[in-house]
Formats: sequence, structure tokens, C-alpha cells
Amino acid sequence: MAAVIRRGVGRLGRKRSGMDVRGYVEGHRGDFVAALKEWVAIPSVSADPEHHGDVRRSAEWLRDHLAATGFPTVEVWETDGLPAVFAEWPAEDPDAPVVLVYGHHDVQPARVADGWDTEPFAPEERGDRLVGRGTSDDKGQVLFHALAVRAGLAASGRSAPPVTLRMLIEGEEESGSPHFPALLERHRDRLACDVVVISDTTMWAADTPSMCVGMRGLTDCEITVTGPETDVHSGSFGGAIPNPARAVADLLAGLHDDAGRVAVPGFYDDVAEISEEERALIAKLPFDEAEWLRTAGSPAASGEAGYSTLERVWVRPTAEINGMWSGHTGAGAKTIVPRSAHAKVSFRLVPGQEPARIQECVRAFVADRVPAGLHADVVFGGPGVRACASDIGSEAVRSARSAMERAFGTEVLFTREGGSGPEADIADILGAPLVFVAVGLDEDRIHAPNEKVEIPLLLKGAESAAYLWERLGRAPRTG
Amino acid sequence: MAAVIRRGVGRLGRKRSGMDVRGYVEGHRGDFVAALKEWVAIPSVSADPEHHGDVRRSAEWLRDHLAATGFPTVEVWETDGLPAVFAEWPAEDPDAPVVLVYGHHDVQPARVADGWDTEPFAPEERGDRLVGRGTSDDKGQVLFHALAVRAGLAASGRSAPPVTLRMLIEGEEESGSPHFPALLERHRDRLACDVVVISDTTMWAADTPSMCVGMRGLTDCEITVTGPETDVHSGSFGGAIPNPARAVADLLAGLHDDAGRVAVPGFYDDVAEISEEERALIAKLPFDEAEWLRTAGSPAASGEAGYSTLERVWVRPTAEINGMWSGHTGAGAKTIVPRSAHAKVSFRLVPGQEPARIQECVRAFVADRVPAGLHADVVFGGPGVRACASDIGSEAVRSARSAMERAFGTEVLFTREGGSGPEADIADILGAPLVFVAVGLDEDRIHAPNEKVEIPLLLKGAESAAYLWERLGRAPRTG
Repeated sequence: MAAVIRRGVGRLGRKRSGMDVRGYVEGHRGDFVAALKEWVAIPSVSADPEHHGDVRRSAEWLRDHLAATGFPTVEVWETDGLPAVFAEWPAEDPDAPVVLVYGHHDVQPARVADGWDTEPFAPEERGDRLVGRGTSDDKGQVLFHALAVRAGLAASGRSAPPVTLRMLIEGEEESGSPHFPALLERHRDRLACDVVVISDTTMWAADTPSMCVGMRGLTDCEITVTGPETDVHSGSFGGAIPNPARAVADLLAGLHDDAGRVAVPGFYDDVAEISEEERALIAKLPFDEAEWLRTAGSPAASGEAGYSTLERVWVRPTAEINGMWSGHTGAGAKTIVPRSAHAKVSFRLVPGQEPARIQECVRAFVADRVPAGLHADVVFGGPGVRACASDIGSEAVRSARSAMERAFGTEVLFTREGGSGPEADIADILGAPLVFVAVGLDEDRIHAPNEKVEIPLLLKGAESAAYLWERLGRAPRTG
Repeated sequence: MAAVIRRGVGRLGRKRSGMDVRGYVEGHRGDFVAALKEWVAIPSVSADPEHHGDVRRSAEWLRDHLAATGFPTVEVWETDGLPAVFAEWPAEDPDAPVVLVYGHHDVQPARVADGWDTEPFAPEERGDRLVGRGTSDDKGQVLFHALAVRAGLAASGRSAPPVTLRMLIEGEEESGSPHFPALLERHRDRLACDVVVISDTTMWAADTPSMCVGMRGLTDCEITVTGPETDVHSGSFGGAIPNPARAVADLLAGLHDDAGRVAVPGFYDDVAEISEEERALIAKLPFDEAEWLRTAGSPAASGEAGYSTLERVWVRPTAEINGMWSGHTGAGAKTIVPRSAHAKVSFRLVPGQEPARIQECVRAFVADRVPAGLHADVVFGGPGVRACASDIGSEAVRSARSAMERAFGTEVLFTREGGSGPEADIADILGAPLVFVAVGLDEDRIHAPNEKVEIPLLLKGAESAAYLWERLGRAPRTG
């Protein structure tokens, strides 16, 4: 570990301003926490129309705070839903890289009655913790960027950041970002950047800092198989006409082979296998499978042969039955051949897999297998979401990792997330690589009662960001 | 066909009283229809508590009618539900065979609003048809036995029937006969008999008289597979823990092999294959598969390889998925690994298969296949129903067939029914062979609006019964 840390520090290059940034950040902890408490006190619940005024107040609060921080341009951007905030602080050097920070200022619903020990929108400091809705997800992690830019300026003595810093903080992330792609499209020119920094994920643990380097994509469908015009009596017809429920069971059972691989022909054709380097880094994580199973509530792990549990949920594509129904589902027996059967199936995708191509493969799989006398339909829920991943050999990831290692003083490992958010949209629409610099913890209880954040981690986040701007400012612009 | 008829007539033996029976029956058509209309006018709907008084009135009407017919013993038998009627007319010869006729006097619900062209309980003669609820199922078919016994006495000049005739006409058949097994048990001694005659099935067609010689049995279960304690997020856990819906799909898909045979080990161990003679008789039936598929509403037939459609629904055992459900079944997508999955499966059984043994096989099949980390439960709906079948080589079946051939003047073929009723209980509890002498038609619209019966077929039923008593009365008692 020591060698790794030395190597990390060695990469930081010429200027040794670390203590200055840290000194500034730690010296302004009080101001930072006070500002965060003020912001958290605005119940910006995007899912609740009664709080839509608060979401707007939250956007205005952030606008004012970023303006006070020194951003020359700060705007509230309207959408067809709730407003986002855009801010820009150009570097002195017009050729400096452009960094776009993404986060969100809306929060999950929260009421004391849900099981909170405190009023969720009256944040309380408890030692190093700040308890309140949005402290971790995502207000704290947005706000540390404002602290970071001030710390960088103080440490360098300059009047502008070493990169052109843009921030886009949306107001509907907790409601599925319905207007976010349109917003990105509309402002594509003003959002152009060399790298997107996402601060809305978690680290492995407080003592095991890590960076998320990928999220799986998703496409989901509903399969419907129809047979006889109505449910018919199984005494009169059972055994002599095809049963739609059996056809759906056959389809679902055929989704996987005995090795737990998805058996849809073509499914793996474009899968980008992860590098041995990343596998080794995943294997280094202090993963406690028994604890993970307790979280899952499952007595056993199982999945694709040849991969660990973390690889199965992070870097391997899957087919999952999310629901199914057919015929009689009430009490007692009803001896019928049901007229139809249905299943909802979703596919987690990994880099390389195009949702549209996977949808074609699934349609063909179903069409090939439905027996004569039955009709099958496959309806996809939408175009699907591509997986996103950061290239761990890229300059952006190496810089971010190095910056976090400098802040945390220890090796930073790589993680992934099994699910997907609006991040893939950002990478797709803006055409820029993503890096995830975030200091949340799985134990922060985001989306649950008693959400909290560890204040020292937010300060490490600010340090990390400041070091990252500094390092990227020295790199040639790649865009 | 002519040769067959000659052979049939040749079997009738010594006494040629046919014309006398037929003459009596046809001469009393008016009285018979008038009595039936009176009985049908009593709306004895067992499923509707508002009509329970009518079910009792119906029992009393039948008691009085059978007493007037000449039965020395006629009793209304109480149950814990609705009353049955028992009647007995001993043969002069105490060693004569004892025949028990089974039927029912309750009827399906019927309201004009359901789509009747007439008032269902105001029966109307339309040429040879009598339209009204219960005309075919089962009042007409019960009543022809009273006409038969009078015709037999008139033709023979005797004062008692050639067999000891017992009738048991229950009042809850259309409600699932919930108290019928207890009634059989309680009166087992008074119901002891050499053969049970069931008059509650249908013939192939008006011009193709036939006898039902078997009904499939049934056992049904609900399979429940449970996994994680709650639905869990498929992004976080999908692909790395076992999915109960997949396990149920695997179980259901594994119920059949590629040849359409039930793949539950042991399932076929005790199946009594039908004789080549019966297969040949089934093949003789003028079966129109296209018409049958129209009735099923299914565009194709499919099933166990090596068997015809009629064999598949009559003489082969099946496994049928009647229902299944798991996880998200509403609109849209929900990316979960569901906590549980469920299926309802029923098995049609054929002679030889013991429901209890099949239940064991199914339990073992499920237990063997449920993957680690999941828990499976199989709950059967009850002890199940054994298949019932008449031995086509038995004296009872040969006598009944011969009697029907004499009445109809043409060959009588054999059919079966795919489903099961209380008949298996009768055979099980009384330990006597069943023969089905009935003249309903599939087109009689039993259980549907505009139920009707063909009066000439009821008269043929009466003739058949009279010939059967005569023939059995000459046979040595077998019980």
C-alpha cells in the first residue's frame, strides 16, 4: 500500500500545494457546514408537487451561493419541469481543459413519520456527521466543489481556476430526470467539455476510498404470449392445445444456460471484457460476501460461472425476470388452460452492448421459440440505456484517482455500480468521458430515513476536486 | 354398420319384448314431458341460497313422483347442505343384481338476463325439444328412469323390476357435491350395489350414440418458491443471487419433455394403457379436429407425441399450468429480483394413477430442482380425485352397450370425459363398477343460456334403461 501511495503522490508532479488546499478546506469547515445546513433546510422534493416551490428556492439558493463563491456566470435554467442551475468560471488560459461537474439539488421525500430521529429538513450536526435529507445525496457533494474552487484559488494565489469549470446541477434527478436529456441537447454548446465529473456516487468505505468507473445499462421488456381466445377448461382441452403459460415458462427458463450465462443468441457478441488490471483491483476490495448476502436478504449467491459476485453485479450483463403472470392467481384451484401469459424481463448491459441490438436479439429469441398455435409479442419499455464506463487507463481517470489519493493519503480502488442513472445520457449527449469523484457512503442512508453525511469526507471531496482541477489544468486539452 | 347392428340385436338374447317397451315409452311421451315440465319449473339452484327452498321442493316433487311411479321406498335424505332423494324398488328375486342409479336434481343458475330466449324455469316445447334449465342436466335424465321402470313392468307383465333398483339423486352436484361423500359413507349399507348407473354425461351426437367409459382424475397444487426476504434491486443484486421467478420458470418448463410427455419422474409408472380395442373405437368416432379447435378457440393442437387429440384429452394424463405470478405485474418496469414466485399446476390423472403417489412424485420433482438459496413449497388442494373408468370388457358395460344399441338401433361407441365429477367418489366409496347410460348432447347448452334436451333421446334413454334392467336381471349377481 505504501508503495502505491508513494506512486500516487509521485504523479502529482511539480507543484506541492497540497497542504495549502487542505489548510484552506479545513479552516473553512464551519462556513461550509453552515452553508450546507442552510441549503438542506430547503425541502427541494422534486417528487412532491407541494414542494416544487422549494425546488425553485433551492435552485435560487445555489445560484446565489455559486455567485458568492465567485463564478462569473450563474444561471437558473428552466426546463419543462423543475429548474437546473448552470455556473461557469473560465480559466485564465483559454486553452485550458473544460470540466463539467454534474450533480442535483433536488432530494428524496422525507417525513418524520417515515422513521426519522430528527426533522429531515432541520439538519443537525452530531460530531462529524450532518444528519438531514440531501446532506449526502446530493447537496453535500455539490457544495464541496464550491469549497474546492475557493481552496484552489487560495492555495495558488490565482484569480481563476486552472480549468474552465462548468457546473450543471439538475432539479429532477430523484424523479427520473425526465427533462434532463432535452436540457443537455438544448445547451449542448454551453456544456461542451473535455471531461464530466460526477459527484453522486459512493465510495467503498470511509477507510477505503474508491472511484466508481462504470454503471451498467438497461433495457426492459414485457413478453406476452396468447393462445386460446378465452381461458378454456383443462379437462376438455388440457394436454391437447398449447398452453401460453408453459410457453412463457419455456422462454424464461431458456434465458440462461447451465453455466448461468444468458442464452439469448448474440447477447454477448459486443461485450467489452474488463481488463485483468480492473479485475485485480476489484478482487482487492475487502468484500464481505456474507454481509452482502445479509443486505440482499438472500441465503446464497449464484450467477454466471467464472465471475465473482462483485463482477456479476458490476461488469457482467444479465437477464432478470422482474415479474410474470398468467391465468388463475387467486385462492383455490381453477382448472384452465389460460388464454395468455406475461413476463417482464430486464437486461443489465455492459460497455459494448447497444440496447437496440440487444432488443433485436431478444425479439429473435422469442420469435424462434414460441410454439405453433401461440402468438408472442415483445414490447420494450423504451430505447434502453447504454452502460457507461470510465477508461481506467485514461488521463481523466488517472488524474482523478491521483487527486483522491492525494486527498485521502491512501490507495484509491475502483468500483462500479450495478444500476444506471442519467449519467449515461450525459456521456452520450455531450460525448465526453465521465469520472466519478464522490465521497458518499452506502451507509449514508440516502433515500431512507436518517440520511447523513460524514463532514470529513466532504472536506476530502473538496480537496480531491481542487487537486483534480490543478492536475487537469496542467494537462494538454484533449477535446 | 348394418353388420354391427345385427350383431347388437343378436346379443339381446331370448326374450323379444323390445317393441313392448318402446311402445309403452312412446305412448307415454305426453305424460313424461308434462311431468318433466312440472319438475323443471322448480328453480332448484343449489348455488343460490335464495333458491334453497326450491331445492327442497324439487326433492319433494321427485319423492312424490317416484312414489307414484311405484317405488315402495322413497325418502328425502338430509345432508349438512341440501337434500338428496333415495328410492328403492326390490326385485322379486332376492338374488337379483342391485343397480344404483345416480343423478342430481339441483340445477345451474339461470336468469333471462344471461341471454335466455325463454324464461328458464318456464319450460317450453319446441317440436322435439324441451327448453329450460335442467331439462338435460340432469332432471330429464333422472326422470327417464321412472318411465323405464314402468315400461319394463308393462312389457313384462311383472309387478317388480328384474333388478333391485335403487336411486340416489343428490341436490348439490352443481355446487361441487360438498356433502356427497359423507352421505355415501353414512348410507353405505343401503346403497350397496352391483353396478352404478350414471345418467349425467353426454353422447357423441344424436346420430352417434355413445357411452362414456371413463373420466380423468385430478390433483392440483400451488408451488411457491421464495428467495430474498424482500424484492431487491436488480441493479444491485441482479445476476448474483438466485431469482425465484427463474426457478419457477425452470420448474414449469421442466414439467414436459420435448415429446410433450410429463417429465416428473415416476408420473407414468402406474398408468394403465388403454386397450387397442378402445383406441380403435375412439378412432372410429367422427371427430372433426378443425371444429374442436374452433370450440377451443386455439389455432393449433399440440400434446403428447404418439396420441390423437381425443386420446390426449380422454386417456392420457397431463400436467397443466393453470396460473403463475411473481414480482411486478403492473404497468411499466420495476427492476427487481422478486422475493417469491408462484404457480398453480394441475395434473389430470388416468386409471392406475393414485393421486397420493403423484403428489409424492411432484414434491420430489420440485425438491430436486430448486436451486440453493431458494425455498420451495408445494401445497396440494386436497387428496385429489382418482380417475374412473368402466372396463369395456365387463358384463356391466357390455350389457349397457347392448341395451343402448337395442334402443337406438345402431352401434354404440365409447367416449370418455377429460374432467371429473363426484362419480369417482361413488365408485371409490361403494366399491361398485360404474356404467354411464346417458343421452345428453354437448349441444344441449348445459350450464349456459337456452339449455334444452331432445325429447326423443330421453325416450331412447328410458328404453335403454328398461333393456338394461331386463338384461342385468338375467345375469347372475356378481356383488
